[in-house]
Amino acid sequence: MPKYAAAIFDVFGTMVDWRSGVAAEVARMFAAKGAPVDAPAFADLWRGEYQPAMRKVREGERGYVPLDVLHRKNLETVLARMGHGGLFTDAEKAELNHAWEKLPAWPDVSDGLAQLKTGVFVAPCSNGSIALMIRLARYANLSWDAITGAEIGQGYKPDPKVYRQSAAALGFAPEEVIMVATHNDDLAFARKAGLATGYFPRPDEFGLGVKMDLAPAQDWDVIAIDMGDMAEKLLKG
Amino acid sequence: MPKYAAAIFDVFGTMVDWRSGVAAEVARMFAAKGAPVDAPAFADLWRGEYQPAMRKVREGERGYVPLDVLHRKNLETVLARMGHGGLFTDAEKAELNHAWEKLPAWPDVSDGLAQLKTGVFVAPCSNGSIALMIRLARYANLSWDAITGAEIGQGYKPDPKVYRQSAAALGFAPEEVIMVATHNDDLAFARKAGLATGYFPRPDEFGLGVKMDLAPAQDWDVIAIDMGDMAEKLLKG
Repeated sequence: MPKYAAAIFDVFGTMVDWRSGVAAEVARMFAAKGAPVDAPAFADLWRGEYQPAMRKVREGERGYVPLDVLHRKNLETVLARMGHGGLFTDAEKAELNHAWEKLPAWPDVSDGLAQLKTGVFVAPCSNGSIALMIRLARYANLSWDAITGAEIGQGYKPDPKVYRQSAAALGFAPEEVIMVATHNDDLAFARKAGLATGYFPRPDEFGLGVKMDLAPAQDWDVIAIDMGDMAEKLLKG
Repeated sequence: MPKYAAAIFDVFGTMVDWRSGVAAEVARMFAAKGAPVDAPAFADLWRGEYQPAMRKVREGERGYVPLDVLHRKNLETVLARMGHGGLFTDAEKAELNHAWEKLPAWPDVSDGLAQLKTGVFVAPCSNGSIALMIRLARYANLSWDAITGAEIGQGYKPDPKVYRQSAAALGFAPEEVIMVATHNDDLAFARKAGLATGYFPRPDEFGLGVKMDLAPAQDWDVIAIDMGDMAEKLLKG
């Protein structure tokens, strides 16, 4: 008998390899122009704009806008910074922006998630929009019960309303739901919002061999080695 | 090449047989009390309270509340009217309220929807909450990309924002999305909101042999005989 009725998941980093996926699309689009590019570095810069862009929404300076809009604006910033402001047409930049929907799942994810879904409700709790999440789910072969996260909470993690509204949308109290992520800070805020917490490490999120702190920062409720192990532990209860 | 990028669906009546499903749960719960009941008539009365209950939300007298809350209140009304106000405990009434999550799909639905999903994004656009829709989807074996509808629009059909916000949540303009329903009035409002419209009849929604007007009331964009036929037509484009 599972202890938690539902599990909600961080997606970028925890479920999918955003860095390889974005770099592959960047490489493809630049190659079509015959322009050289350090694609992984481009992906890192693009991702680097992610947190600052959400700040205004988090701090109430502006209302909720889907992450796709922020990604698109951040793309302009990064292209300009790399001296490629004029390389792509608007249509091409829109196409490149879809890179965030074409991210490979880590190898243990698709099967582990499908296994978990046999006994527990599952949903993403990402800062990605519903539109982004459904395309990403099809690409990476992830099967969800519903799409929760930023759009349901009309805000961005780690705003507590995103965690709480996601649990509520699934029909559960916060303590009946476990938030699963590879990022300690995400879990710290989920715990503050009243949810249970589950952790596994993703040593390669920022590239092979890039050193990161991979230890759990708190006594998270469930600690696993990967998604398959997490599914097994959550189903056992 | 499909003409519409996404199809969104009415659920109660169009995809699932709410009358049989609710009646079965009513019969089961009354039998446990040894109390006689006309279960289909009870289901009809309960459903009869559906439209009036949503009026206050539609007219802005009160903010959005999930349909589950209205179903629960309507259950009290119907029990009292049938002279059974004291028959069930609160916990039993809560259990009976879950009847709306245990509805059989019409026989053509599960396969037709799965087939359609191979080429088109699919989502419910029901007045049911996300929590209700995910439980109903598991029970009736419906596979969706996301749950849209009342909770996404924070209102009830036929409020145009419910249709438009559902399309927007999927990442599409209204005209890229087809609303599919067996109810002409639902389609009339979807059309006014800018969506394409698809119709097939459900002659047995209100019981075998109950006479209804089953003709399409307007020149809906796609008219089919059932869900399988609709899927085939939508995939062909």
